[in-house]
Amino acid sequence: MTDAADLTARLIRCPSVTPEEGGALVLLGDMLSTAGFEVHRVDRNGTPNLFARWGAKGAKSFGFNGHTDVVPPGDLGSWTHPPFSGHVEDGFIWGRGATDMKSGVAAFTAAAIDFVTRTPPDGAVTLTITGDEEGASKDGTCAILDWMAANGERMDVCIVGEPSNPDQMGEMMKIGRRGSVTFHIKARGVQGHAAYPHRAKNPLHALTRYLDGLISEPLDQGTDHFDPTGLQITSIDCGNPASNVIPETATAVVNIRFNDLHTGESLTRDLTTRAEAISAETGVALTIEADISGEAFLTEPGPFVDLVRDVVAGECGRQPELSTSGGTSDARFVKDHCPVVEFGLVGHFMHQVDERVPAAQVEQLKGIYQRILERYFA
Amino acid sequence: MTDAADLTARLIRCPSVTPEEGGALVLLGDMLSTAGFEVHRVDRNGTPNLFARWGAKGAKSFGFNGHTDVVPPGDLGSWTHPPFSGHVEDGFIWGRGATDMKSGVAAFTAAAIDFVTRTPPDGAVTLTITGDEEGASKDGTCAILDWMAANGERMDVCIVGEPSNPDQMGEMMKIGRRGSVTFHIKARGVQGHAAYPHRAKNPLHALTRYLDGLISEPLDQGTDHFDPTGLQITSIDCGNPASNVIPETATAVVNIRFNDLHTGESLTRDLTTRAEAISAETGVALTIEADISGEAFLTEPGPFVDLVRDVVAGECGRQPELSTSGGTSDARFVKDHCPVVEFGLVGHFMHQVDERVPAAQVEQLKGIYQRILERYFA
Ligand SMILES: [Zn+2]
Ligand SMILES: [Zn+2]
Repeated sequence: MTDAADLTARLIRCPSVTPEEGGALVLLGDMLSTAGFEVHRVDRNGTPNLFARWGAKGAKSFGFNGHTDVVPPGDLGSWTHPPFSGHVEDGFIWGRGATDMKSGVAAFTAAAIDFVTRTPPDGAVTLTITGDEEGASKDGTCAILDWMAANGERMDVCIVGEPSNPDQMGEMMKIGRRGSVTFHIKARGVQGHAAYPHRAKNPLHALTRYLDGLISEPLDQGTDHFDPTGLQITSIDCGNPASNVIPETATAVVNIRFNDLHTGESLTRDLTTRAEAISAETGVALTIEADISGEAFLTEPGPFVDLVRDVVAGECGRQPELSTSGGTSDARFVKDHCPVVEFGLVGHFMHQVDERVPAAQVEQLKGIYQRILERYFA
Repeated sequence: MTDAADLTARLIRCPSVTPEEGGALVLLGDMLSTAGFEVHRVDRNGTPNLFARWGAKGAKSFGFNGHTDVVPPGDLGSWTHPPFSGHVEDGFIWGRGATDMKSGVAAFTAAAIDFVTRTPPDGAVTLTITGDEEGASKDGTCAILDWMAANGERMDVCIVGEPSNPDQMGEMMKIGRRGSVTFHIKARGVQGHAAYPHRAKNPLHALTRYLDGLISEPLDQGTDHFDPTGLQITSIDCGNPASNVIPETATAVVNIRFNDLHTGESLTRDLTTRAEAISAETGVALTIEADISGEAFLTEPGPFVDLVRDVVAGECGRQPELSTSGGTSDARFVKDHCPVVEFGLVGHFMHQVDERVPAAQVEQLKGIYQRILERYFA
């Protein structure tokens, strides 16, 4: 029996702040190799990535996806136990990555090893683990999937092991995600004296008018499986020190989390059209750059979603909500490869000081993953 | 005869960037003293100031006000002639302060000396010249007026010699000024993740809503002698580098140039009330600090205004507009002492590289001031 809680602690002791591998993928690769998995490091542009398959290449394959990189620990002095200590006390494992998501990786790795060891399936189990999910994610899970496509590797379904439960195990699984797009807006007017505004064009007035238009009405009311699209202004900056001067330029950043009524492109068109109208009205040039980090997607409820939901309900005693809420995850890449759902731990303490996880919860998650594998190959 | 153009060049050669005296007030004090004026340096808190009176203390007194300090020259390499050279070529005097307003000071100083020398009046001529008008102005003209009040000195009327003409000599004189107040607005919300806005309170949304309310409707339509009140957002700042994070705080700066329908206090009340409404609506705390740099004021048309207007019309061949436009000037302090108008040169090149003035225009201005003195004491 592979101890998922102990593996969590050992992974926490690998200081794998993005983009450092920190020994985490080496540890996992060695374990999986020993357990009979075919293991490949599929690093790209310096980003460390791990691919592991048990069973025949090309066989029906159940996949897991996760990441071992973690966000920086912040102020070390604020931690009760050092963030890379993997300290265990009173049933909790402490450290950066305890919930997001070394525990999830440990749970599915342990579940996969124990499953193939005890009841070798007629098929394959495939693990895809990246060292860059918290960073730019350009050469992380993407790179593994590219490598798989190029090498005839497959997953027929995949679970991403990110924390998915708000408070209690079994409350929520994710069957899709809203998309995310960030707009960088630049307003260029004509500088001038605040007492002579007719000789200037104030970029802040055009920007305020524009942004107020964006926040005045909801973009939609939500759809069957999705919350309403949300728009947040995350910065407005000008840096003009002189209160008697109308500045020449100002910038704003707007982030939109959108549902399946939109695409990154449709929103870009919409915001550009609105900007053109304001530019025409004010004479201030508004230009927009879009950075689409992920499109909205949905794994339609069906046999795979039902299987995961039923196992979770059986193991946790509650029916998980089928949600598409929250931020982005690597599921946005996996969804182009195969049906994907997300189920993992309770997301408490993610990215916070004193991140920690109950050891029993990690073992419970491992049990859920094992049961899912059993049912899938039954 | 005192040469106003030459005096302008000599004053330009005094490097009197605020708060440096640069020798300018010493030069003027010596000249005025020699010409029979009673001269006092009335410096306060290190700010250099000059008071000069010809004639008996307490007699009917005509006043002039001006400043010898100048704004920094900026990039020295951009100047055709060095900014403190007082270079004379092709009828122009070059240098920082050539229009704002060493020329104006030179013109009224020369006019006053020649006037009292040639036709000693039955009364007094009083010059108040500060070395801090371009800076904080806390210990400049204010300090001279305070000293005058404490010492039984008086001006019955006063001309501030700031450039008042947009393009041609005689186009415009100023009989008042709009007030100016700057508001520093701080919005404090609750930080959070852009994907979970219900757990956060976005200060930028509250601020945008607030500012859009301020710019959506004009504050008034103007009055008999005043333009409409103007409001300009001069900065909005947040400094949030993370596009997936809703920031905790944001700030904005708003400058209002207001007419006689408002006071700094009434506007502060208005903006505070609006802020309270937005705070109540959004849960984001909006706090406001007001910095009132001057109240609106008007020297009602009457004998003094008529006198100046008639002389200008006679000397320049055009009837000057009675305006209250533009930024603030030290007239905002003088108006509490006596009726004040502003008439000076054409304001071209003020605060710009290659500031310069036609020597003939300085002599013309000197002539106008002399004629005003003659008419006043006639
Ligand atoms: Zn994660
Ligand atoms: Zn000036």
